[in-house]
Amino acid sequence: MTNNLRFDGRVVIVTGAGGGLGRSHALAFGSRGASVVVNDLGGSHTGEGASKRAADMVVDEIQAAGGKAVANYDSVLDGEKIVETAMKAFGRVDIVVNNAGILKDVSFARMTDQQWDLIFQVHVDGAYKVLKAAWPIFRKQKYGRVINTTSAAGIYGNFGQANYSAAKLALVGLTSTLALEGKKENIHSNVIAPMAASRMTETIMPPDMLKSLKPEMVTPLVLYLCHEDTKENGSLFEVGAGFVGKLRWERTGGYGFPNNKALLPEHIQERWAQITNFEDGRVTHPGSTQESMESIIANFENLAGDSDAKAPSSGPSPAKKTSGGSGSFKSAAVFDRIKTSLEAMTPKDREAQIKKVKAAFEFKITNKEGKEEVYYVDLKNGNGDVGKGANPKGKCEVTVSVTDDDFVDLADGKANAQKMFMSGKIKVKGQVMLATKLGDILKAQGDKAKL
Amino acid sequence: MTNNLRFDGRVVIVTGAGGGLGRSHALAFGSRGASVVVNDLGGSHTGEGASKRAADMVVDEIQAAGGKAVANYDSVLDGEKIVETAMKAFGRVDIVVNNAGILKDVSFARMTDQQWDLIFQVHVDGAYKVLKAAWPIFRKQKYGRVINTTSAAGIYGNFGQANYSAAKLALVGLTSTLALEGKKENIHSNVIAPMAASRMTETIMPPDMLKSLKPEMVTPLVLYLCHEDTKENGSLFEVGAGFVGKLRWERTGGYGFPNNKALLPEHIQERWAQITNFEDGRVTHPGSTQESMESIIANFENLAGDSDAKAPSSGPSPAKKTSGGSGSFKSAAVFDRIKTSLEAMTPKDREAQIKKVKAAFEFKITNKEGKEEVYYVDLKNGNGDVGKGANPKGKCEVTVSVTDDDFVDLADGKANAQKMFMSGKIKVKGQVMLATKLGDILKAQGDKAKL
Repeated sequence: MTNNLRFDGRVVIVTGAGGGLGRSHALAFGSRGASVVVNDLGGSHTGEGASKRAADMVVDEIQAAGGKAVANYDSVLDGEKIVETAMKAFGRVDIVVNNAGILKDVSFARMTDQQWDLIFQVHVDGAYKVLKAAWPIFRKQKYGRVINTTSAAGIYGNFGQANYSAAKLALVGLTSTLALEGKKENIHSNVIAPMAASRMTETIMPPDMLKSLKPEMVTPLVLYLCHEDTKENGSLFEVGAGFVGKLRWERTGGYGFPNNKALLPEHIQERWAQITNFEDGRVTHPGSTQESMESIIANFENLAGDSDAKAPSSGPSPAKKTSGGSGSFKSAAVFDRIKTSLEAMTPKDREAQIKKVKAAFEFKITNKEGKEEVYYVDLKNGNGDVGKGANPKGKCEVTVSVTDDDFVDLADGKANAQKMFMSGKIKVKGQVMLATKLGDILKAQGDKAKL
Repeated sequence: MTNNLRFDGRVVIVTGAGGGLGRSHALAFGSRGASVVVNDLGGSHTGEGASKRAADMVVDEIQAAGGKAVANYDSVLDGEKIVETAMKAFGRVDIVVNNAGILKDVSFARMTDQQWDLIFQVHVDGAYKVLKAAWPIFRKQKYGRVINTTSAAGIYGNFGQANYSAAKLALVGLTSTLALEGKKENIHSNVIAPMAASRMTETIMPPDMLKSLKPEMVTPLVLYLCHEDTKENGSLFEVGAGFVGKLRWERTGGYGFPNNKALLPEHIQERWAQITNFEDGRVTHPGSTQESMESIIANFENLAGDSDAKAPSSGPSPAKKTSGGSGSFKSAAVFDRIKTSLEAMTPKDREAQIKKVKAAFEFKITNKEGKEEVYYVDLKNGNGDVGKGANPKGKCEVTVSVTDDDFVDLADGKANAQKMFMSGKIKVKGQVMLATKLGDILKAQGDKAKL
């Protein structure tokens, strides 16, 4: 296998690179063409002392192998100085690997404020400081790669490491947000939980076994993630002893209680088995705050068949009568407009629209007198179609129930589909996630119709 | 439904209880018999200002409804003072709900160090300080309930909230470790990600929709989790708008590279599809650092059928010959000892042992001359059995391959099973997780045999 993943011309900062994982990362980057800032304060694993020797030795090693490297001895809390070293020596920064860390293991009961603070300073504030100094450079050059280092102790918790597990998981949160903020400018941020010989692993493994947890089994993932061709962004990996796996959040289908009735702790108690059930085939894997909300909305619909917990339980009120009711459906005009605009599209545009939506929608519209009319918007079959009654071309993927007034408000842009859903004004059955396309479809068609 | 989940005699601290979620929690606890410390600095949602009015009003409300409450106006950074208020007024603390929080939303590029620090101080250090002061009380009385408050922004990341998402996920890490440390003393810690009307939700929802995100839809979960009968510990929940769901980590089956060969970034690149594949039916859900390690070990075995990546790839060397080889199997004596000790057990002990292990083990022992002998230890069928050759009572759940010398070392307690596995000295096929019982079984039997 050829070493085709090169870093020529790239400048890499590796913090805590005087030994262990950091040293391994630095050597590997150096051997593949990168210019490396080898940062190390030279302290012990519990943060005591400082010596230039650790960083110097790694620089020597890289240079002896024909690579480019410079040492930096600053604390990560002086992140701007580390970045300055890179700029002075090499004129740029492309990659930051936040690896520096110390341990102050102690039970929560016996932890001192200093032990708490120091861990956050080195792991969290230190990573922040280096990234903060590198970030404007990344943005300006529209390129950057970030690796933060978390730990299984953070992911799963670990006895005697309240400070460390909290600080380490903070870095996962930071990475997720940096991934979102940097994406547009080709700044990719990922976070690794390495299993390598360390105090952390000593607590769960026999000492001799640590020998098999070589830093060199972690470093290749770091290099891969930092390569310019790698698209991965905002991800968390466990890596070590030859294993590489990716993590994500899994959420139970949970339980959806009616949003318009009082919820009691006893209701929670009653549904606890469902709330905590990961094995009932209803789990979701939200990837963002938006997806988290969307799948919660979808969850409500999943429960529509559950007579105990229809939520939101209000829905449209077909029996609501007012003297002003005319019997005519204002929504009919909306569907006419949608139909007109669909037919006015070029065949190519229509094809693109159908390819995008790939679904047929059924609308059950209820007017003030409690009468119901059914319409369909088919953006799946043939050239697409809109009309009254059942869809002649087949089953609709999703059925939307709404009052005539509310639908007109929605189509006119006076109301928001998601909001109406949450407040129970719109009910959706079938492939409920398709309802998220509703607002867009109506808006697009409405705008065209107004031209 | 009767309100049978009561908190009579319990003392609850709710931070940031002057409004929103905290107020809702405080009122609910107060209405169910708890004595409540209503903590609120009275600042704005961005942390400016301070007023006693917010806490006072909630205390009045609780008292007007016949409940017991006292106000506290200290910053959460003075957590010991908040706990002191509880001790002075009510003589104990049973429950801490860390709810206080502020926001300093800004892009990472424009974030000031002060905006970074302040968020960590209030959310993370504040929660730490209150818990730290309550913890010795919890331990002494062998009872405590902790709720920390995280956010979807922490779980998934959120644009403009690098500080907030990092701090909020730190609380998830803290909770996991406190759950482990407190368990023995009946101190249960859980963490909630509420969806309620807040600045966070404003960024992803239309303003009017926030009305449906009532704090009262979050509070019942808090009360349920804090009840003395609730066993849940170390869990993360998303809750709001009627939905309650539980979260856990999901990890891909990933890829297991040989641990005794150089690993290159190109190897990672080559296996990227497998490393990141959540859909191939190989995902795991580790619940602890230990389970994380165990399932990584199991993962190696999963790959045994993959000719590209047998890992650990060394395994026992059946062809290894030395002049000192005698042809006899020292392991035979070990199996004899296991058999003898099994037969020497009382029927009750043997039954308990079989119930505990519930599996049959096959051993493929290789001696120095490259000869193989097969043994079985059946702790599943009938009264259990040990012998040479294939298990006459049926299939073995797990097959262990090891050299004669290594097996004797293992049985004599000179070597560690997990270590031998990792270094490739033991290979396991079948239900590989059963191999974790191997050391225990051998040790127990060996000790008995020596009596």
